[in-house]
Amino acid sequence: MKPLIPVVLAGGVGSRLWPLSRALFPKPFHALFGERSLLQSTALRAARVTSRPPIVVCNEANRFLVAEQLRALELPWQCIALEPEGRNTAPAIALAAHLAMADAAGAQLLVLPADHQVEDAEGFAAAVQAAQEASEGGAVVTFGIVPSRVETGYGYIELAVAGQPGVQPVQAFVEKPDAERARAFVASGRHLWNSGMFLVDAEVALAEIEAHSPEMAAAVAESVEKGQSDLDFFRLNDAFLRSPNVSFDVAVMERTARAAVLPVDFGWSDIGSWEAVLETAGADGRGNHFVGDVLPLDVDRTFVYSSHRLVGAIGVNHLVVVETADAVLVADRSRVQDVGALVTQLRDSGRSEHSLHTEVFRPWGSYEGVGHGERYQVKRIKVKPGASLSLQLHHHRAEHWVVVRGVAEVTCGEDTFSLSENQSTYIPQGTKHRLRNPADRTLELIEVQVGDYLGEDDIVRFDDQYGRGPR
Amino acid sequence: MKPLIPVVLAGGVGSRLWPLSRALFPKPFHALFGERSLLQSTALRAARVTSRPPIVVCNEANRFLVAEQLRALELPWQCIALEPEGRNTAPAIALAAHLAMADAAGAQLLVLPADHQVEDAEGFAAAVQAAQEASEGGAVVTFGIVPSRVETGYGYIELAVAGQPGVQPVQAFVEKPDAERARAFVASGRHLWNSGMFLVDAEVALAEIEAHSPEMAAAVAESVEKGQSDLDFFRLNDAFLRSPNVSFDVAVMERTARAAVLPVDFGWSDIGSWEAVLETAGADGRGNHFVGDVLPLDVDRTFVYSSHRLVGAIGVNHLVVVETADAVLVADRSRVQDVGALVTQLRDSGRSEHSLHTEVFRPWGSYEGVGHGERYQVKRIKVKPGASLSLQLHHHRAEHWVVVRGVAEVTCGEDTFSLSENQSTYIPQGTKHRLRNPADRTLELIEVQVGDYLGEDDIVRFDDQYGRGPR
Repeated sequence: MKPLIPVVLAGGVGSRLWPLSRALFPKPFHALFGERSLLQSTALRAARVTSRPPIVVCNEANRFLVAEQLRALELPWQCIALEPEGRNTAPAIALAAHLAMADAAGAQLLVLPADHQVEDAEGFAAAVQAAQEASEGGAVVTFGIVPSRVETGYGYIELAVAGQPGVQPVQAFVEKPDAERARAFVASGRHLWNSGMFLVDAEVALAEIEAHSPEMAAAVAESVEKGQSDLDFFRLNDAFLRSPNVSFDVAVMERTARAAVLPVDFGWSDIGSWEAVLETAGADGRGNHFVGDVLPLDVDRTFVYSSHRLVGAIGVNHLVVVETADAVLVADRSRVQDVGALVTQLRDSGRSEHSLHTEVFRPWGSYEGVGHGERYQVKRIKVKPGASLSLQLHHHRAEHWVVVRGVAEVTCGEDTFSLSENQSTYIPQGTKHRLRNPADRTLELIEVQVGDYLGEDDIVRFDDQYGRGPR
Repeated sequence: MKPLIPVVLAGGVGSRLWPLSRALFPKPFHALFGERSLLQSTALRAARVTSRPPIVVCNEANRFLVAEQLRALELPWQCIALEPEGRNTAPAIALAAHLAMADAAGAQLLVLPADHQVEDAEGFAAAVQAAQEASEGGAVVTFGIVPSRVETGYGYIELAVAGQPGVQPVQAFVEKPDAERARAFVASGRHLWNSGMFLVDAEVALAEIEAHSPEMAAAVAESVEKGQSDLDFFRLNDAFLRSPNVSFDVAVMERTARAAVLPVDFGWSDIGSWEAVLETAGADGRGNHFVGDVLPLDVDRTFVYSSHRLVGAIGVNHLVVVETADAVLVADRSRVQDVGALVTQLRDSGRSEHSLHTEVFRPWGSYEGVGHGERYQVKRIKVKPGASLSLQLHHHRAEHWVVVRGVAEVTCGEDTFSLSENQSTYIPQGTKHRLRNPADRTLELIEVQVGDYLGEDDIVRFDDQYGRGPR
């Protein structure tokens, strides 16, 4: 068998899962079901079918999240490839093909979006094996999901004949249908959902992209050639931005003579909306599903997700309620597809709730805003064992640090000293300082910032172990 | 004319306005309409009809709120009377009668619940004048509201004849009716809503209570006689607790031959539920009313109150959504009467969200929890000009104080020193300390508490200018 390299596409935002999923902490990184995030589940699923570590493609802004979540499972990776900006799946698969071929001659790609859910891991493994055999003959195999309901939210793959198992030719790709056509599709037995998962020879994928979109092929090739390794990451050159923004389905599958489809039924969901979360999580006898601190009174067919605060609900029916640190969503379940429109409104009005969470992840750990006023803000900072923030100074604010847990090594001006639990120090405005965790457990501290201007951009960096610039 | 003394009853909790209204910051103190709280509006309404300052009856726990809100309007008060525990309106009116008579011979009482809303201030003033004249003849006058809708939530007052203006005898008091009877009442024109507002000679009120409930009369008389003046307050003796817990309607009005009623129509509401808040605030063309940061998409007949966070709403209808710092309510509008049941569940399960807000008011100012973790919590503390916290110590926690605004005078062990903006200090576990604001503007600081146990009851007080005990 040829070497099979998982390609995990982690570039999606999942805006229909707002307010939980946001650009800077999107859907693949959330643990919606159990303890593992969708990305982690995807990586583990891949690890069961191949011993090759994955190539993960993600946005620059989320690189530390990817690395952190894979590290937490002690899963190695071949590469975390950073797109300067997302250009949809076709260029992402092209760049993964380049990286895979550089690593292993004759590599095959198992392309998996990072934010899908699969219930039947054995069924998945069997399907991958069947697809792999077919792709060795040069087919571009897509996994077609046997529909379990009438669904207007997906594209469909039409088969020549109904009910035939195994890899087979694609008759046609069909755009998202209206309800009537969707009903007919499901009744026909000749239509499958287009899942966005593929198995293809890296060489074939590149040749097809070259044949059907030479502009994309050229942009990706240059971005890889001029790309740079950077710690755990491979940073693509900005040539990548010249690639057309198009899906692998449109760029290749709908045009190639090599398209093949494997009908599968392994409990798949793309978790495309809060409705899909409810379906996958499963409802109780009244049709409800509650996560977190919820107090219901006569509530039916309702999904409540509480992350920070008590949610009391009385006499409501068929709602989705999602509570996060800085935003609450209340929607009728029939309208969950419109959550994306709300997020667009937020973005267009220049607000940060569409992209930022209150907890922000950094290479050295994370921080979370816990309160703010006119001249101050309070943050909880977590620093990973051995990690260090950059040597920096702020022109407009002073900082007070109180160690709550663990040990901090503080550099302030010319001095370096240790603070243990319950000790505190003061960093005057304009003084060079650095915070490091010298110990082997997480350092947790409270930072009180006081000053006229408290923006994140009031920072001058002098030395940064993560290769970040002076601001 | 006899001296007319307003008696403002501010002891109610208003649990049906949860999560905004809570035992420790209840309904009278919230600014639901415009900038003034219901208590402030009530006090101003009274000030327009009499030059005598009010007697305010409230719970011990809310005394500083009352004083602060009246002070903010520069409204003097005759007395803020503190009940050790609420015993409903009859004992409250009895104690106010004692205090009023001690202050002014022949005093009349204008009894006003602190949490009602009146739109037509002139109509109110005219009604008070008419009632005052009648009460001089010895009548106990209640204000009966001309019904504007079929309402099963109020008691009704039956008149002998329909449509007669002016003070007149009461035919009967009628308990809350079912919907059918309520419809008949409204159609008859002979039934008014029982508002809980009264005008009565202090001497008559006491005589009637003595006649119909001698036990109550005795308990209240003793509690006043043994009561103590305490700064701005009059603290009733615990003899008060022996009084039966009963309303003035039941104790006096339903039994006395002196009962009279004045039909009035001055835009009254008791703001008894979120539905009443919506009615009073007024809905827009789609039947919605939004307060705070709300982003609606296809929302109808819905009330959203956002105090801290963005609330996004999609495709919902006929809901009440109330967002506060630590709790969110989502209810169908037809079920707003059941909010109290939810609060009862919270109390019964030992949770604090039924009574505590995150901002807690103290004689010296207020504090608000802004974040907490396993071994720490962060509070924002505001200290009023000239105010001082007690000299105290904590056995289980250390405190770090960072001054954000204003000047702090800190006593820590044997030392006393000043901290200005942006300076900080550390109070070790077990050290006597005191915080004072020596300046003429509010002191604002961030307190980071670190320790094994962070409960409010880990406090030993040595000296307190507000007369609070050692714990």
